[in-house]
Amino acid sequence: MSTGLDWIKDPCMSIDTAAAEAARQRQDQLTKPRGSLGRLEEMAIRLCGMQGTATPSPDPVQILQFVSDHGVAAEGISLFPQVVSVQMLHNIARGGAAVSVMAEAVGARMEIFDLGVVTDPGPIEGVRSERLGAGSGNIAREPAMTEEQLAAALALGRAAVERALANGARLLICGEMGIGNTTPATALACALLGLEPAALAGPGTGLDAGGVSRKAAVVAKALTLHAAPGRATLELLRRLGGFDIAASAGAYIAAAQRGLPILVDGFIMSSAALVAVRLNPCVRDWMLFAHRSAEPGHRHMMEALGADPYLDLGLRLGEATGAETLVPLLRLACVVHQRMATFAEAGVSEA
Amino acid sequence: MSTGLDWIKDPCMSIDTAAAEAARQRQDQLTKPRGSLGRLEEMAIRLCGMQGTATPSPDPVQILQFVSDHGVAAEGISLFPQVVSVQMLHNIARGGAAVSVMAEAVGARMEIFDLGVVTDPGPIEGVRSERLGAGSGNIAREPAMTEEQLAAALALGRAAVERALANGARLLICGEMGIGNTTPATALACALLGLEPAALAGPGTGLDAGGVSRKAAVVAKALTLHAAPGRATLELLRRLGGFDIAASAGAYIAAAQRGLPILVDGFIMSSAALVAVRLNPCVRDWMLFAHRSAEPGHRHMMEALGADPYLDLGLRLGEATGAETLVPLLRLACVVHQRMATFAEAGVSEA
Repeated sequence: MSTGLDWIKDPCMSIDTAAAEAARQRQDQLTKPRGSLGRLEEMAIRLCGMQGTATPSPDPVQILQFVSDHGVAAEGISLFPQVVSVQMLHNIARGGAAVSVMAEAVGARMEIFDLGVVTDPGPIEGVRSERLGAGSGNIAREPAMTEEQLAAALALGRAAVERALANGARLLICGEMGIGNTTPATALACALLGLEPAALAGPGTGLDAGGVSRKAAVVAKALTLHAAPGRATLELLRRLGGFDIAASAGAYIAAAQRGLPILVDGFIMSSAALVAVRLNPCVRDWMLFAHRSAEPGHRHMMEALGADPYLDLGLRLGEATGAETLVPLLRLACVVHQRMATFAEAGVSEA
Repeated sequence: MSTGLDWIKDPCMSIDTAAAEAARQRQDQLTKPRGSLGRLEEMAIRLCGMQGTATPSPDPVQILQFVSDHGVAAEGISLFPQVVSVQMLHNIARGGAAVSVMAEAVGARMEIFDLGVVTDPGPIEGVRSERLGAGSGNIAREPAMTEEQLAAALALGRAAVERALANGARLLICGEMGIGNTTPATALACALLGLEPAALAGPGTGLDAGGVSRKAAVVAKALTLHAAPGRATLELLRRLGGFDIAASAGAYIAAAQRGLPILVDGFIMSSAALVAVRLNPCVRDWMLFAHRSAEPGHRHMMEALGADPYLDLGLRLGEATGAETLVPLLRLACVVHQRMATFAEAGVSEA
C-alpha cells in the first residue's frame, strides 16, 4: 500500500464529555417540558461536546465540493451522459446548481474542486483544479485509482480541512458531483458491509428497474474483480472508490483528528463516511448525519454506522444538498440552547 | 348553536392549479435529476399554488400564539401546576420561551394572546388581552365553553388573520400554551375520529404510564358527558375544546377563505386543524403540516387529515415550535425553486 498514509491512523480529538454533560443539564433547566425539543436538543448537546463550548454554532460552515468523473460511466449505469460532470462543474461555479443556491441561502462557504472530470476544462473562476487524472478507472475492468492517486486524494481532503480550520470553520460538509458515482459508492459499501449488489443498487439519477438490474450486474462484476475476501479497507477504496469518495474520506478523518464536526450528506458521502470510520473508528464520534437518502440502499449504510439521520425528505440529489438542508436547523438548535430562559430566570414553576 | 357563525361555512379561496402546474414543470427543468429534491420540491410547488405565483415565499410569517387555561387541569392531568400558564405568558412576552427565541431566529412576527389564563395578569407588554374567561370549563364535569365564548374565540382567530393579511403576511402559524391542553385536544380528536381514549392519550409534558392512564380516564369521562352520537362538530368543539383550540380553528378557516397558507404545528394544533377541516373541508387545501409530534396519538390525526408531515424530530413542546422549525426549510425550498438554473440556462445536457 501507498506510503505517506500513516496519518490516517492518527488519533481523533476527544469529545469534550464535560461540555456535553453541561449542555444536557442546561437543556433540562430551560422553560419547557424535559426533552420536549427532541432531536433539536440532541443537535445542540452533540455540538457542545464536539466544540467544547456552552455556545455552540455551526458557523462558519465549510463545504468541500468534489467534482470528478468515474470511468464506470462507460458501462451505461447513469441516465445522464458523462459530459454533464464538466457542465455541472461550470454550473456549480456560476451559482446555478442546487448546492450553490443552497450554500448562499444557508450562508455556507464553498470550495469547489475539479478532481478530474474526463476532459480538463482549463481554469474556471472559483474552481480549484486539483486534477488526479481524466476520471477514475472503470471499476468493472480495472481499479478506480493507482496508489499514488489514492494517497493524493486522501491528502487533498486533509489539506482542504486545514485551510477550512485556518479560516475559522466550525462545521465541515463534503459534497460530490460526478456522473455515475452512485455505482462506486454502491460497490464500496457492498464490499465493506458484505451485502449483495441487489441490496444496495438503486435508481441513482432515475434508472428504471431494468437499469437498476444492469447497475447491480456492473457492481457484481466490480466486486468479483476487486473485493477478494480479507482485502483491507484502503485497498477496497483504491479499487472500488473514486476521487470524490477518497478525498471526502480523507477530509472526514482529518476533521475528526483536528476536532472539526462533520455533517454527512447522503448516499455517496455515506460510503465515504463508512470508509473513514473503518479506517479510523474514532472518526464516527465527530459525525452528524443530515438525512435519509431516497436511494434505497442508504439505510444499510446508516445501520452499519449506527446513524439515525435527522431529516427524511426524499432527497436523492447529492452535491451536499441534504447536509445543507440541515444547516438552518443546527443553527436554530444552537440559538435555542443559548437564548431560552431557564425556569429560575423566568420565574416559571417546575414539574 | 350560536348565531354569528355562518361565516365558517363560506367557501375557501381556490388553489391556483395553473401556478402549481407551472411550478412543477419548472422543477423538472432545473439542473438536477427529476424529482431529486423530493419534498423540498413539493413545498415550493404547493406554495406556488396557494400563493398563485412563480415566486413563492413564506415571508412575512405570522405566528398567533394563543395562551389560555383549561379547567380540566383540576383533574391532575399535567406534570405542571396551572400557574405555569401565566408564568409562561410572561416568559413568551419577554422572549425567553422556545417559541419566542425561535420566532426571532427564523424571522417570524408573533402576536401573543391572553385568551384567559385562570387569573387575569393585567396588562403585559406585547400581549393582547382578549380574555374569554378565567380559563375554559373542566370538560370532565361541564362544557369547555359557552356558545358566546365559542363564537368569540372563532371570531378572534378570524380577526387576527385579517390583521395579519393587512400587514402582508404570507404564511400563518397558530400556536398555544396552556397547562393541560393535550387533554381537550385528545378528547376532541377521540370524538371526531371515533377512537378510544387509550389510542390518543399520551404523556403530554411527561406523564408516566400511570399518569397517561389517569388522563385517558378523564378523557373517557368527558366523552361520556359530551360526545353523544351524532353531535355536530361545532358542539363537540364547544364542549370538549378550549379557547386556544377554538381560536386556532377560526384562524385556520379564515386563512383558507382569504387564501393565506397555513402551517400546522403539532398535537394540539392538529386537533384544531381537524375541527376546521370537519367544519369546512376546503380548509385542508391550505394546510401544510410541519412535523410529526412525539405525542403518540398524533399519527391518528395525521392519518385522518391525509397529512404526511415534513419533519420527525421527536418534538412535543407545542407553542408553535414544530412549525417554526420548518420555516427555514420552506424558505430554502422557495429560494431553490427561484434561483436554480435550468438545463437550458446552464447548458447542461438532459437525461
